[in-house]
Amino acid sequence: MAKEVGVAEHGSFSGKDYQDPPPAPLIDPKELTKWSFYRALIAEFIATLLFLYITVLTVIGYKSKTVPDGSDPCDGVGILGIAWAFGGMIFVLVYCTAGISGGHINPAVTFGLFLARKVSLIRAVMYMVAQCLGAICGVGLVKAFQKAYYTRFGGGANELAPGYSVGVGLAAEIIGTFVLVYTVFSATDPKRSARDSHVPVLAPLPIGFAVFMVHLATIPITGTGINPARSLGPAVIYDQDKAWDNHWIFWVGPFVGAAIAAFYHQFILRAGAFKALGSFRSSSHE
Amino acid sequence: MAKEVGVAEHGSFSGKDYQDPPPAPLIDPKELTKWSFYRALIAEFIATLLFLYITVLTVIGYKSKTVPDGSDPCDGVGILGIAWAFGGMIFVLVYCTAGISGGHINPAVTFGLFLARKVSLIRAVMYMVAQCLGAICGVGLVKAFQKAYYTRFGGGANELAPGYSVGVGLAAEIIGTFVLVYTVFSATDPKRSARDSHVPVLAPLPIGFAVFMVHLATIPITGTGINPARSLGPAVIYDQDKAWDNHWIFWVGPFVGAAIAAFYHQFILRAGAFKALGSFRSSSHE
Amino acid sequence: MAKEVGVAEHGSFSGKDYQDPPPAPLIDPKELTKWSFYRALIAEFIATLLFLYITVLTVIGYKSKTVPDGSDPCDGVGILGIAWAFGGMIFVLVYCTAGISGGHINPAVTFGLFLARKVSLIRAVMYMVAQCLGAICGVGLVKAFQKAYYTRFGGGANELAPGYSVGVGLAAEIIGTFVLVYTVFSATDPKRSARDSHVPVLAPLPIGFAVFMVHLATIPITGTGINPARSLGPAVIYDQDKAWDNHWIFWVGPFVGAAIAAFYHQFILRAGAFKALGSFRSSSHE
Amino acid sequence: MAKEVGVAEHGSFSGKDYQDPPPAPLIDPKELTKWSFYRALIAEFIATLLFLYITVLTVIGYKSKTVPDGSDPCDGVGILGIAWAFGGMIFVLVYCTAGISGGHINPAVTFGLFLARKVSLIRAVMYMVAQCLGAICGVGLVKAFQKAYYTRFGGGANELAPGYSVGVGLAAEIIGTFVLVYTVFSATDPKRSARDSHVPVLAPLPIGFAVFMVHLATIPITGTGINPARSLGPAVIYDQDKAWDNHWIFWVGPFVGAAIAAFYHQFILRAGAFKALGSFRSSSHE
Repeated sequence: MAKEVGVAEHGSFSGKDYQDPPPAPLIDPKELTKWSFYRALIAEFIATLLFLYITVLTVIGYKSKTVPDGSDPCDGVGILGIAWAFGGMIFVLVYCTAGISGGHINPAVTFGLFLARKVSLIRAVMYMVAQCLGAICGVGLVKAFQKAYYTRFGGGANELAPGYSVGVGLAAEIIGTFVLVYTVFSATDPKRSARDSHVPVLAPLPIGFAVFMVHLATIPITGTGINPARSLGPAVIYDQDKAWDNHWIFWVGPFVGAAIAAFYHQFILRAGAFKALGSFRSSSHE
Repeated sequence: MAKEVGVAEHGSFSGKDYQDPPPAPLIDPKELTKWSFYRALIAEFIATLLFLYITVLTVIGYKSKTVPDGSDPCDGVGILGIAWAFGGMIFVLVYCTAGISGGHINPAVTFGLFLARKVSLIRAVMYMVAQCLGAICGVGLVKAFQKAYYTRFGGGANELAPGYSVGVGLAAEIIGTFVLVYTVFSATDPKRSARDSHVPVLAPLPIGFAVFMVHLATIPITGTGINPARSLGPAVIYDQDKAWDNHWIFWVGPFVGAAIAAFYHQFILRAGAFKALGSFRSSSHE
Repeated sequence: MAKEVGVAEHGSFSGKDYQDPPPAPLIDPKELTKWSFYRALIAEFIATLLFLYITVLTVIGYKSKTVPDGSDPCDGVGILGIAWAFGGMIFVLVYCTAGISGGHINPAVTFGLFLARKVSLIRAVMYMVAQCLGAICGVGLVKAFQKAYYTRFGGGANELAPGYSVGVGLAAEIIGTFVLVYTVFSATDPKRSARDSHVPVLAPLPIGFAVFMVHLATIPITGTGINPARSLGPAVIYDQDKAWDNHWIFWVGPFVGAAIAAFYHQFILRAGAFKALGSFRSSSHE
Repeated sequence: MAKEVGVAEHGSFSGKDYQDPPPAPLIDPKELTKWSFYRALIAEFIATLLFLYITVLTVIGYKSKTVPDGSDPCDGVGILGIAWAFGGMIFVLVYCTAGISGGHINPAVTFGLFLARKVSLIRAVMYMVAQCLGAICGVGLVKAFQKAYYTRFGGGANELAPGYSVGVGLAAEIIGTFVLVYTVFSATDPKRSARDSHVPVLAPLPIGFAVFMVHLATIPITGTGINPARSLGPAVIYDQDKAWDNHWIFWVGPFVGAAIAAFYHQFILRAGAFKALGSFRSSSHE
C-alpha cells in the first residue's frame, strides 16, 4: 500500500495523492429533499442535547458537593472532572455522529466548515438551529432534575469571572475556539486522510482532547464557552441578567476564532500544497 | 484499498458498501451445541465479576480514606477516580471480550442488542444470567476483602441520593443508558465498519468514555447504575432495605434507555440508509 | 483486503485465518548468539528503570506535598495521579519496547508468556533478571534525588495496609495480576491480530489502562504490586523490615495470577477455537 | 497486504521490509526555496505559542484558585490537571502539526532528531528560533490576560524547588527528556512504520502521555521543563532573577537527555537491526 500511495503521489497526471472535494454550493436545494439531511439535523439536535445534559449536570453536581456546610470539601469531581466531562462528551459524540452529520455539535465548528466551503449555507444555518434547540432542551432537563440546586449554582451559564475585562474574555474565547477548530481542520484534512487512511476513526480523540485542554485553561476566566450553543442553552434556561450580560462574547469570540482557524488552515497550511508536495516526505520526520 | 471500497460502494448490484447481517433468530437451538456459546457465557461471567470487583473496591477504598477522623481529607481517588474506574474497566473488558462474547458486560446492552436482533433470545437471557452471577461474585469478593469497611460504607449499592424523586432517578438512568447504548450501536454499526475497517479495535475506547461521562454526571443523583448487573450485585451482597428500595429503578431505567437507543439507531439513523447512501459522502465532512 | 482475509478464513486447507506460532522451545541456545537477544535485555532493563523512576518519584513527591504542615492539603497529584503514573508509564513503555523485547517490563507478564510457551525459559529468566536490576536502579535514582523525603515517606515500597490480612493481600495481588495478564493475552492473541490487523499498535493502551484500574482499586490494600520487579526495587533500596515483611506476597501473588490468566486464555477462551471458528462471526456482534 | 509486506521482508535484494531514509544533509540550500519550509516554521511558531498559552494559563489559574483566602482549598485543577494540560496539548499539537512540520514543538526534540540526521542543521536552528519566539508570545498573552495574578504566582517559570540541588534538577531534566525523546524515536522509527502502517496517526498519543508522566514525577522538583522553549518563554516574560537563576539547567538538561536518547535509539536499539531481522518475529511476542 505504501508503494501504491507512492505511485499515486508521484503520478504525472496530478501530483497529488488526495483529492479536495469540490466546494459545497452556497445553497443546494437538492439537499432539502433528502432524508439524510433531516437525519443529520436530528443527530445534531440529540448530540447537543446530550452534551449539555451531561456537562451541566456535572457542573451542578460538583457545586452541590462543594458547599461549605461541613461536608467533605473534596467530595466532588473538581474542575478537572468538569473539563473531562466537556472534552470526553465531545469525543464520544463526534465519534457517534461523524458518519451521520459530520459531528459538529457546535455552531462555531459549523461556521468554520462553512467558511471553508465544506457545508452549504442552508445546511450550516439549519445545523446551528438544531444545535441551539438541543442545547436548550439539554439544560432544561438538568433544571428539571436539579430543581434545588440549579438556580443556586448559576445554572452552568458562561460568565466573565470577576476581575477579567470584556476584552480578555473575548480574546480567551477567540483563542480557545481557534485551538478547537484548528484541530478539527487538521483531523479532517483530505490530504491527511490520503496519507493515513484511518484518520476519520481517530479524529474524535484529539478533538475531544482539544476541548478538554481549553477548559483546563479558561474555566477560571469565562467558564469556557468556545461553543455558542453551549453558552446559549444555560442562558435561556437560567435566564437571569448576569447570564445575558456579555452573552455576545460567547457568539462573537467563537465565530471569530473559527474564522481565523479556517483562514490559517486554508491559506497558510494548505497554500502551495500542490507545489510543495514533492518536498513533503523529506521535510517531515513523521 | 480505498478504490476497492469505492467500487463496492458504487457497484450496481447493491448500492451498499456494507451488508447488514441477517437478524438473529429468536431461538437458535444450534447455538446450544457449540462450545463458543458456553465460552462466551464464561467470558461474560468473568468480565462482569472483574468489573464489579475493581469498581466496588475503588468505591469502598475511596470512602474509607475520606472518613473525617483527622486524616487527610483529600487522600482518596475522589469521585473522578471512581468515574474512571467504571469507564476504564468497561474499556479494558470490552476490548478483551469483544472477540469472544461481543463484550456486553451489561444486561441493558444485551437487551438493546436483542431488540435490534443482533443476538438471539436464548443468548440474551443466558448472558444476563451470567452477568448477574458474575456481578454478585465480584461484590462478594470485595465484601470478603473489606470486611471492616464494606457494610459501613454502603456496599457500593446504587441508591437515590436524598432530595431526588423517583422520577428524576428513573429519568437519569434512562438518559444515561441511552448515551451508553447509543455509543455501542454507533461503534458496532456495520455501515461504519465498512467505511472505517478498524472500528472493532477502536470501539471499546468511546464505549468506555461514555460510561465515564455518565458517571461524572449522575453519581450525585443515583450513584449511576446504567447496568442492572452492576446494581444487582451490591444489592444482593449488601442486602439491606435501603439497597432494595427503588431497586426496580435500576432495571426499568436501563432497559427503557436501551430500548430508546435501539429505536433511535435502527429507525431514525439507519432508516432510509439505502436511499440516502448516494448523498452520503458529499453531506458529511468527515 | 477484507476479501483476502475472507478467503484465508474459509480456505479449505486450514479453516483458520490466523496461525499460532509454534511454541517457543524451553531452551534455545541459538538465541544467545543473537544481538537482538541482548538488545531486548537492555530494553527491558532501561524500561523497568524508567518505570520505577517515574512512578516512585510521583509517589514520594505526592507524599511530600501532603504533609500536614499547614500547606495546602490538596497540593499533590493524589492517589488518582499515582494510579495514572503507573498505568500511563506502562502504556508508554510497552509502546516503545514492544518491537524490541515484546514490552514485558514485569516478571509476572514474562512468567505468564513463558507458561503459554511464547518465550523460552532462558529468555524468561534473563528478562526477569534485567527487570529486577532495572527496578533497583530506578528506585536508587529516586533515593539519590529525594534524600530528604525518600525514607520518611516509605520509599514507595509495597506493604499490607493496616487492617488487612495476608490472605486478602495475596488474593488482591492474584486478581489484580490476572486482570493485567488477561489483558496482555487478549491484546496479543494471534487470532485477534488476524481479524484486526493493527492490534499491535493499539495493544499498549488497554494494557496501560488495566494497570491504572488495578491501582485505583488496590492501592488502599497493598499499594498495588502486580509486578514483582516493581515491589523488589523499593524493598532493596528502602531495605527496612517492614518492606521485607510479606515481600513474598508480591512474588507469589503475581505469579499465581499470571498462571491463572495463562490457563484461562489458553484452555478456556482458546480451547476449541478451531472447531468454533465457523460459528464465530455470527455469534459475536462486533 | 500482509502478504506484500512479507514478500518485501523476505525479498532477496535487501532483507529489510523498511527503508531508512538517507540522512538529512547538514545544510540543504534547496530547502530555503520551498514554501513548505516556511509553512513548517509558521506551524512550529503557532503550535508552541498555543502550547505555552494553554499550559501557563492553566498553571496561573490553578494557583489563583488555591490561595488560602478562605475559599475552597480544592477548587482548582490540581497538579494532576497541570500535568494533563502539558501532556494533552502535546498530544493535540503533535497530531495537528505532524504532517506540516513533523510536530516537534520542542527544541530538545529538534536537537535529538538533528543528531539522528533526520533534519538538516539549518532546519533545526530555524525550528528552535520559531519555537522560542512562539513560547515568548504565548506567555505574553497569558500575562496580558492575567495581569492581576501573573507575577504574583511566579509566571509559570521553571525553578528548582527549595531543597533540591542543581545536580538533582539537572539529572531530573536529563532523564525526563530522555523519556520523551526515546518515545519520539520509538514512535517515528521507519522499521515500526513498516510493520504497523498506521503508526504516524497513533504516535501523538504515547508522546503526549510521555510528557504527562514526566510532569507527574518532576513537577515537585523543577516544575518540569524538558522543553527549553517552554522554560525560556516564562523566563523572558516574567523576567525576574529567580526565573533566570539556573535557567541553564533547562537548556543543558534537555539537550543532554535528547542526545542520550538519540544515541540509545540509533546505536543500541537499531544497531545490528539488519542482521537481527531474521530472528525478529520469533523473538517478539507482539
